[in-house]
Amino acid sequence: MARFEAALAQASADCGIVPTAHAQAIAQVCAKASFDAKALASSARQAGTLAIPFVKALTQKVAAVSPDAARYVHFGATSQDVLDTAVALCHRAAGKRLLELTRGLGDAAAELAQRHGATPMLARTLLQPAGPVPFGWKAAMWLAPLARTLPRLRAAHDDACVLQFGGASGTLSAFGARAGDIFARLARELQLARRPTWHSARDGFARYGAELAILTGVTAKIAGDVALLMQAEVGELSEPAGAGRGGSSSMPHKRNPALSMLALEAARRVPGLAATLLNQLQAEHERGVGQWQSQWLTLRELVGAAASAVAAMHDVLAGLEVNAQAMRANIERMQGVVFSEVLALRTSRALAERLIEQAVGEKRHLRDVARADAEATGLVKPADMDGLFEPAASYGAAPGMTQDVLSDWVKARESAL
Amino acid sequence: MARFEAALAQASADCGIVPTAHAQAIAQVCAKASFDAKALASSARQAGTLAIPFVKALTQKVAAVSPDAARYVHFGATSQDVLDTAVALCHRAAGKRLLELTRGLGDAAAELAQRHGATPMLARTLLQPAGPVPFGWKAAMWLAPLARTLPRLRAAHDDACVLQFGGASGTLSAFGARAGDIFARLARELQLARRPTWHSARDGFARYGAELAILTGVTAKIAGDVALLMQAEVGELSEPAGAGRGGSSSMPHKRNPALSMLALEAARRVPGLAATLLNQLQAEHERGVGQWQSQWLTLRELVGAAASAVAAMHDVLAGLEVNAQAMRANIERMQGVVFSEVLALRTSRALAERLIEQAVGEKRHLRDVARADAEATGLVKPADMDGLFEPAASYGAAPGMTQDVLSDWVKARESAL
Amino acid sequence: MARFEAALAQASADCGIVPTAHAQAIAQVCAKASFDAKALASSARQAGTLAIPFVKALTQKVAAVSPDAARYVHFGATSQDVLDTAVALCHRAAGKRLLELTRGLGDAAAELAQRHGATPMLARTLLQPAGPVPFGWKAAMWLAPLARTLPRLRAAHDDACVLQFGGASGTLSAFGARAGDIFARLARELQLARRPTWHSARDGFARYGAELAILTGVTAKIAGDVALLMQAEVGELSEPAGAGRGGSSSMPHKRNPALSMLALEAARRVPGLAATLLNQLQAEHERGVGQWQSQWLTLRELVGAAASAVAAMHDVLAGLEVNAQAMRANIERMQGVVFSEVLALRTSRALAERLIEQAVGEKRHLRDVARADAEATGLVKPADMDGLFEPAASYGAAPGMTQDVLSDWVKARESAL
Amino acid sequence: MARFEAALAQASADCGIVPTAHAQAIAQVCAKASFDAKALASSARQAGTLAIPFVKALTQKVAAVSPDAARYVHFGATSQDVLDTAVALCHRAAGKRLLELTRGLGDAAAELAQRHGATPMLARTLLQPAGPVPFGWKAAMWLAPLARTLPRLRAAHDDACVLQFGGASGTLSAFGARAGDIFARLARELQLARRPTWHSARDGFARYGAELAILTGVTAKIAGDVALLMQAEVGELSEPAGAGRGGSSSMPHKRNPALSMLALEAARRVPGLAATLLNQLQAEHERGVGQWQSQWLTLRELVGAAASAVAAMHDVLAGLEVNAQAMRANIERMQGVVFSEVLALRTSRALAERLIEQAVGEKRHLRDVARADAEATGLVKPADMDGLFEPAASYGAAPGMTQDVLSDWVKARESAL
Repeated sequence: MARFEAALAQASADCGIVPTAHAQAIAQVCAKASFDAKALASSARQAGTLAIPFVKALTQKVAAVSPDAARYVHFGATSQDVLDTAVALCHRAAGKRLLELTRGLGDAAAELAQRHGATPMLARTLLQPAGPVPFGWKAAMWLAPLARTLPRLRAAHDDACVLQFGGASGTLSAFGARAGDIFARLARELQLARRPTWHSARDGFARYGAELAILTGVTAKIAGDVALLMQAEVGELSEPAGAGRGGSSSMPHKRNPALSMLALEAARRVPGLAATLLNQLQAEHERGVGQWQSQWLTLRELVGAAASAVAAMHDVLAGLEVNAQAMRANIERMQGVVFSEVLALRTSRALAERLIEQAVGEKRHLRDVARADAEATGLVKPADMDGLFEPAASYGAAPGMTQDVLSDWVKARESAL
Repeated sequence: MARFEAALAQASADCGIVPTAHAQAIAQVCAKASFDAKALASSARQAGTLAIPFVKALTQKVAAVSPDAARYVHFGATSQDVLDTAVALCHRAAGKRLLELTRGLGDAAAELAQRHGATPMLARTLLQPAGPVPFGWKAAMWLAPLARTLPRLRAAHDDACVLQFGGASGTLSAFGARAGDIFARLARELQLARRPTWHSARDGFARYGAELAILTGVTAKIAGDVALLMQAEVGELSEPAGAGRGGSSSMPHKRNPALSMLALEAARRVPGLAATLLNQLQAEHERGVGQWQSQWLTLRELVGAAASAVAAMHDVLAGLEVNAQAMRANIERMQGVVFSEVLALRTSRALAERLIEQAVGEKRHLRDVARADAEATGLVKPADMDGLFEPAASYGAAPGMTQDVLSDWVKARESAL
Repeated sequence: MARFEAALAQASADCGIVPTAHAQAIAQVCAKASFDAKALASSARQAGTLAIPFVKALTQKVAAVSPDAARYVHFGATSQDVLDTAVALCHRAAGKRLLELTRGLGDAAAELAQRHGATPMLARTLLQPAGPVPFGWKAAMWLAPLARTLPRLRAAHDDACVLQFGGASGTLSAFGARAGDIFARLARELQLARRPTWHSARDGFARYGAELAILTGVTAKIAGDVALLMQAEVGELSEPAGAGRGGSSSMPHKRNPALSMLALEAARRVPGLAATLLNQLQAEHERGVGQWQSQWLTLRELVGAAASAVAAMHDVLAGLEVNAQAMRANIERMQGVVFSEVLALRTSRALAERLIEQAVGEKRHLRDVARADAEATGLVKPADMDGLFEPAASYGAAPGMTQDVLSDWVKARESAL
Repeated sequence: MARFEAALAQASADCGIVPTAHAQAIAQVCAKASFDAKALASSARQAGTLAIPFVKALTQKVAAVSPDAARYVHFGATSQDVLDTAVALCHRAAGKRLLELTRGLGDAAAELAQRHGATPMLARTLLQPAGPVPFGWKAAMWLAPLARTLPRLRAAHDDACVLQFGGASGTLSAFGARAGDIFARLARELQLARRPTWHSARDGFARYGAELAILTGVTAKIAGDVALLMQAEVGELSEPAGAGRGGSSSMPHKRNPALSMLALEAARRVPGLAATLLNQLQAEHERGVGQWQSQWLTLRELVGAAASAVAAMHDVLAGLEVNAQAMRANIERMQGVVFSEVLALRTSRALAERLIEQAVGEKRHLRDVARADAEATGLVKPADMDGLFEPAASYGAAPGMTQDVLSDWVKARESAL
């Protein structure tokens, strides 16, 4: 907030609204002032906004140096200008860090996609086994929504972190004809983009909040899959081990999905928080009663939740323990029925269905049933039959999709630098 | 759904997976088939998805024509492919109409912004009077978030209405090496964009839902302002009169904000609906249990709410009754204190504050107090004093901002054609 | 709505406000009238409420019988009286059915709790194996929140389904001194409880909505557990088999958790819907703009979601396939470490920790390690050692808790009859 | 958390599970221990829960006193036991204060209801003027939902603030047959009610969250009305003046609804927060991954928002400035049409409608039109005509309703002591 007031004084001085010496006095006080946060917060409740006690305190500090300069503190601005711009400045920094973390998470997923293109595992639909897929493809499917989200998050972030400057009524009425000029200088001073007064147009924050919720959600999707694949009975993945990680206070042998839990926790909270920002678009007239006032709080929770989720899952993917043997064992246990689509493609749908029925009924492996079946061996040579039951024969478009997603990611991460 | 199955058969035939004659048989049945919606819905509950009874019914219809062709119905696809693609096709049409409605609403706001650049009214902050602003600028402030939202809504809509085609496990395993080719042909057939399997990556719908909520919210902001300005004690605006509109069942003299109410109603509902879609990003593995299954329902409610709000407010703005006389009278009632910023700019902040205190204390018009004050008349010639109390003197950056927003709107509406 | 108007005419006649013959004419028309729902809905959009075209249509029908009686249709009431009361009447019936379904679900859980008091299975915390528990205790833990919810749902339902009758301003001003008397008679006629005008006090619906969301959530908790225990690798439970149930359109061998999915689907939607009702408490003055108008829609979705979830899970629990062998096998696979607490209790915490470390390190069963350990056999006789590794030795307070919950359930279901 | 561990040691000692001297050592350390909150929070992120580093730190402190005693710290309990119980203890205190604040708010509304039974003002529906009502009745309508909410909030609070004690698997397996006894003693020690393990049954917190949202909403309803009635053009109510209250940083003459704003701000946030708790009911198995872990945070925000709203509106109502003159002036401005219902009751609906049409058309006061109308004066004596246009003649059931609500309040506040 002090940065805003200093820049405002400077910009006003440049345009001849405030004497240069006074602007310098204000800027100097702003640069080194420290405030009693507790006292300000307490007065803020009475005043209805933090800006009023802040401006009062700042004015007193400036007055101690120059009573004349003190008259120009906050001149032409309104409480919401200070607060919204302060929020924009805070989130510019926080958002930059979040984008970095997201790039890191995507890179870790991309690495897995590349490394595990030939590591077969079961796909699972409705929590039941489906056909075999490469784990690398699964990682690419984790990556795909990240590749879509990163540039959109970046754009929403940039839209949200803009200068607020409208004065009492939103028209910069205190500055007359020089309003536009001061606006431009203030934006330059703070290195923030300009936007016409958005006191009552909160779409920027709402959109950023929604993107943060989406980022958290697509990150938690990875977390949920990891936690499910860490189940003792499944055992295909494990979070990286490490001091103080994932232990249990009562069962020392356990390895909990403690990092994935952080992402899942965040994902349960963000829809409600994003909804709050979507619920604050309808502000009354030129400054609403009860919408913008607490958006900083909600945005802070959202960015915190997103960052917590993304950082945790980066650590998970970067150190992920992949148990390829367990993956293969879980495929084997299905006795070949998960290869039915390839069998149908190479023979016929009707035949495949008959063989599956037989295999399930007799609790035999589908391959063995097929190899003993006259109609089947008439269509597929015995020597070729085993090949149908190789996971790779069921990969379909998986390798191509994986490559497509990796290319998308390269473009996405560049666009968001 | 029938369109999907027909196109799938056609694309599969083109790639040699399905005999051409069978594909034609399937396509012909799809083109003219009608289904017992009630029976399908009832079976859907048992089956867990509408697609299963639908495919069963379609297969029976095809079998009646050609039992051999019936074996190829739905071949290689999964329930979710049919359903998600059907949702995409429905929303492509609905979204096109919504974008048209939104352009209409923005045009109506732009028209007001242009027409009322010199119609003074009070700004109001925290529901209290602030300085005078042109009503045209207020309309431009309504327009600004619409101008930002239109292209983003268009992009989110295009991202959401894409082909879903992944087969049982998401890898199009039934098609082997020909998977990519069939995918491309199917997309062309349905004129839908391609995207790697998004069975468990629901960011497209979540983002579209959020944009629909934002559109509804920025529309409801207009509605709220209209309803407040229609209050009997304010009387500055009125919804257009018309048969059957805004009457009261018990008080025949009333003119209710009946259309604005529709937008306000929608705005209270959409945050919860958008939150639902944000809450369904964390789907288990390759197909989740309980997320995507009902997204069509939530999306339908969201589009309906947005369209209701936008259409209603288009009608309001297009026929808005503007009472410029009441606007001026409400300014007058404030006895000049709302002109204080200009007075401060032309004299000094300290003097302005003293004169306001005096005016409020003596219940006199600030202009009269200023004209009788020696210090004030020393700084502003009596002949110029009245000019400070002309609303236009307080407009500050309003005309420039209005022009900027109008330019933004022109660009926005073009980008979303 | 016709029932309200008929009862209002009758009550008004009883109090001498409306001539008896006219009231009878109105009541007769209401009893047999049918309305063009499509036309009413279309006019409702223009009028801002369904009640206005409804009253108009009803008045026309009465006028066709008696023009004089038509003057008394809807006399003294307001649109919201008709609509809110109609909602209350609809939900009285729907709620009764929902309470029955809930009792059915609870009874099925209670039955499992009683039957499986000695069926050991793994507890699982953070999706990792914890100690052995009886499946009956797990069912009791499903039941406990249902036992708490049933009476609270009943109370919230009764609070929500009450008469709305306030007239134009909420004070029943059209009836003067006879207002109280007519109110009482109308309540009796419709068999609805009285409540002072709640046009702008929507806490009844908000509270009912929250309870519906809670009921759906505690039901979905059961669904989630069933779906997880149905995983092929776990295999402890299975939804009942049945025609058309849980199949897959592309993989015929699968048994999907299709009913549990319905409850999980509902649970993802209801928080947003309940939030909508919580978001509509702040209505302006004596009748708000955009809150109550669509609550019927949101409540309908909530009741539908809750009923869908409860009915589905009743079917699941009533026909649940319990695989006690798989349960025991999953315990065995843990090699005894899940019995560590009992071992610690009977020896010492330090010793137990040392033995577990050894067992995990040597991949041996904890029992075997313990039996070979001098310190351990010094504290527990070899003959008793095996007993520590019997699941029942780890049940702790489970049997008592189960009984407590069953008693609570008996009380709960009686209180909600 | 230290209180829990101390009480647990004590209860375990009483039951012979822990040596008495060790329990005393633990209790003594707990009583005076202070922890490095920052370090604990940092380790909590790694461990996935605050309880693990807390127990570790506590164990170290106890070990410094007695290494043997240290072995019994946290014995038989699990992380979630400590955390949930700590939350319950915190909210028991916070809830008590909130109930007091709510009683204060209701008392202030009751005082207004009693004092202003004969202060006429306009009712307003859809933000348009309706008939005259006593301001006291309006205050009673504010009070009615508070009277319903107070006992339900109290019950939900009591349901939420209960002991959590289940141990690793939820069955208190570490304590064998003595489990029930220790449970009872621990509950007594902490003065908390017992409830069977609720590790995965979060209905208590969800219900309390919903009641907090309802309380906030019905409080914000008052705030919204006050803010609307404070509009300069309406001017019927004003928040109490006071140092630092409701000023504007840019317009010194304004009196903003700064306290009402706090309640309105809270009301926009709470639906999303309550939805979060409703969204966390579906926890996996015996301890969920990502639901309960952050509920303390959400509950804290909810209680804080509710308390902020209630405290602010207590201050508003306790010092409310009521401008009865403005209330009457706003009625007068309506030229008698708001008295139409009483006129209809005393003459006929048809006549009243004709007279209103005439009055509105000729812009005359309805009373004057009625007094000059032959048919009207044939039904109502000229001497009685003025009486119909006295506000009190339109009060209908208002006085009775007001008394009913005041009685309900007396009962409600007693029940919640």
